[in-house]
Amino acid sequence: MDRLATTVRRVVPLDAAAMQAARERQDQLTKPQGSLGRLEELSIRLAGITGQAKPVFPRKAVIVMAGDHGVTVEGVSAYPSEVTPQMVLNFASGRAAINVLARQAGARVVVVDVGVAVDLPPHPNILVRKVRHGTRNMAAEPALTREEAIAAVEVGIDVVEAEIASGLDVVATGDMGIGNTTASSAIVAAITGAPVAAVTGRGTGIGEAQLAHKVEVIERALAVNQPDPNDPLDVLAKVGGLEIAGLVGVILGAAARRRPVVIDGFISGAAALVACELCPQARDYLIPAHNSVEIGHRLVLERLELVPLLNLNLRLGEGTGAALAFHLVEAASRVLVEMATFAEAGVSERTSS
Amino acid sequence: MDRLATTVRRVVPLDAAAMQAARERQDQLTKPQGSLGRLEELSIRLAGITGQAKPVFPRKAVIVMAGDHGVTVEGVSAYPSEVTPQMVLNFASGRAAINVLARQAGARVVVVDVGVAVDLPPHPNILVRKVRHGTRNMAAEPALTREEAIAAVEVGIDVVEAEIASGLDVVATGDMGIGNTTASSAIVAAITGAPVAAVTGRGTGIGEAQLAHKVEVIERALAVNQPDPNDPLDVLAKVGGLEIAGLVGVILGAAARRRPVVIDGFISGAAALVACELCPQARDYLIPAHNSVEIGHRLVLERLELVPLLNLNLRLGEGTGAALAFHLVEAASRVLVEMATFAEAGVSERTSS
Repeated sequence: MDRLATTVRRVVPLDAAAMQAARERQDQLTKPQGSLGRLEELSIRLAGITGQAKPVFPRKAVIVMAGDHGVTVEGVSAYPSEVTPQMVLNFASGRAAINVLARQAGARVVVVDVGVAVDLPPHPNILVRKVRHGTRNMAAEPALTREEAIAAVEVGIDVVEAEIASGLDVVATGDMGIGNTTASSAIVAAITGAPVAAVTGRGTGIGEAQLAHKVEVIERALAVNQPDPNDPLDVLAKVGGLEIAGLVGVILGAAARRRPVVIDGFISGAAALVACELCPQARDYLIPAHNSVEIGHRLVLERLELVPLLNLNLRLGEGTGAALAFHLVEAASRVLVEMATFAEAGVSERTSS
Repeated sequence: MDRLATTVRRVVPLDAAAMQAARERQDQLTKPQGSLGRLEELSIRLAGITGQAKPVFPRKAVIVMAGDHGVTVEGVSAYPSEVTPQMVLNFASGRAAINVLARQAGARVVVVDVGVAVDLPPHPNILVRKVRHGTRNMAAEPALTREEAIAAVEVGIDVVEAEIASGLDVVATGDMGIGNTTASSAIVAAITGAPVAAVTGRGTGIGEAQLAHKVEVIERALAVNQPDPNDPLDVLAKVGGLEIAGLVGVILGAAARRRPVVIDGFISGAAALVACELCPQARDYLIPAHNSVEIGHRLVLERLELVPLLNLNLRLGEGTGAALAFHLVEAASRVLVEMATFAEAGVSERTSS
């Protein structure tokens, strides 16, 4: 808990001077003021996050946290739990969607087993930091103890700090865990008070009847565990997941070190919600990548007052939407840093307004 | 006219077999079916355009057509006409927004003077194919003769064919021309019959009074010239522009050679509208990059039944939105080509639906 508390305390407000310098530079670049819209806003935010008037982001990583969910015994997912380790191995071999999109973005993929239910064969591309072999079935009992949840958060802090130590300018969050939209919906319902049906979607692709069953299972989990909405760690432990907790740590650890965190879809959004309940200041370090098909994601974004950069009807997770958004982070930075000013280029400024 | 007519005749329907092959492969890749949303749809479209089940796009170019507008004497823009050649030189020196974003995308920038009002100093990065020194003032007379409009379209065909000959897998459209939102609004109003005020925006940033004046100027241009909505070349000549005509040629020339055309904002959209009036089949070759702040752009997209990939409040032109969308074209291709199938990765398929 000391490590988590220390990390939260290190998250400071954005650097106003760097933001002002970036804003002034944007207005001198050879384009009508404001004509690059959200790219300009993003560049100013990135200046504030990093504390640099001309921030650059050559070193990128997607941290993919993987864990299993005891609640899958209730039949909430279209896929069996064994897909979690199978996909982790697919990540390790470099041919899953996240590998393809991260490669395109020039980002490395860091795969962390923070709670897969089985022991994976040792692989140089898998970091084993298992807190336990999957969560318990939250429909019957707390998914995690408070201590286990904190341990998983601290794994996330450890991992992102190690990546920063070896060179990292921007990080994206990714997830793998069959059953984790169920846990994410439970977290969002518990924290926001929204009806479960309003924050629960089809995950990897369940049908109408199974969706109704999933809602009922989540409602049961909330009734059985009574998570305290004012205690985010209680929510995270009772109805969360190990990979979600790991991502909470990634978010807080990155914010504490002034690195922007590109938030993927619904699972990453649930982690961001918990992180911002623990540390409201962390919100300013988040770059919302995309608007997931999962309906609960929209509520998370609204609650955090974040407008996603992309809207591509994605619902895969893994960090795929965040990897796509890396391009926009880099574009925002490059425009700010590389474009000529009116004075440099000898271009006339506006004549009327 | 022979060259234009021949080009239009070469535009064929998309390749249904390649699209089917791409669709089947998408459904075998290690992700829930459809979970990459619009990237999957885009990959299938790209297969149909190219006729290849696994299309790839390593060679990219943004073709930026530049021209001036006689109508600027009416005071329709926030910037003076001399900014057109100044910005063309800025493109040539590699430090404008389009250069920065094209460089990030690994795309070359091809700058074409198809109608800048002054003669530019010779520069290795500027292709001079000037049809005339700017258009006439459309508020008083036709901007171009029909022959001039066709000549500018054929410049576009020439340029894109030369680029394809030297190696080009995907092309983006870009524009530079102070006054060209005025011409684009006039084209869109003439072809769609929409009220001028409904398709006219602030361009590079005019105020409320100047916007009302801009609308009045466009209404006068339409009243003076009476462009025939059923004759797209008549519209293009009377109230269009040389760079817009050039982009019509780029679009048709690329479609005729089965290259996808990434359409930037409002000016490119007006060119796409004319191109599709001349050749409805060309529509299927268009990739709509983004939703511009210019209100007329939305109407163009609706008319062409195209949903933009990005929504970033851009209003710069130059091809900047299209250059950003290159990343999504490449991502769609890479996912289709590089991801492992369930069988290859040994991942279990779904258990329920």
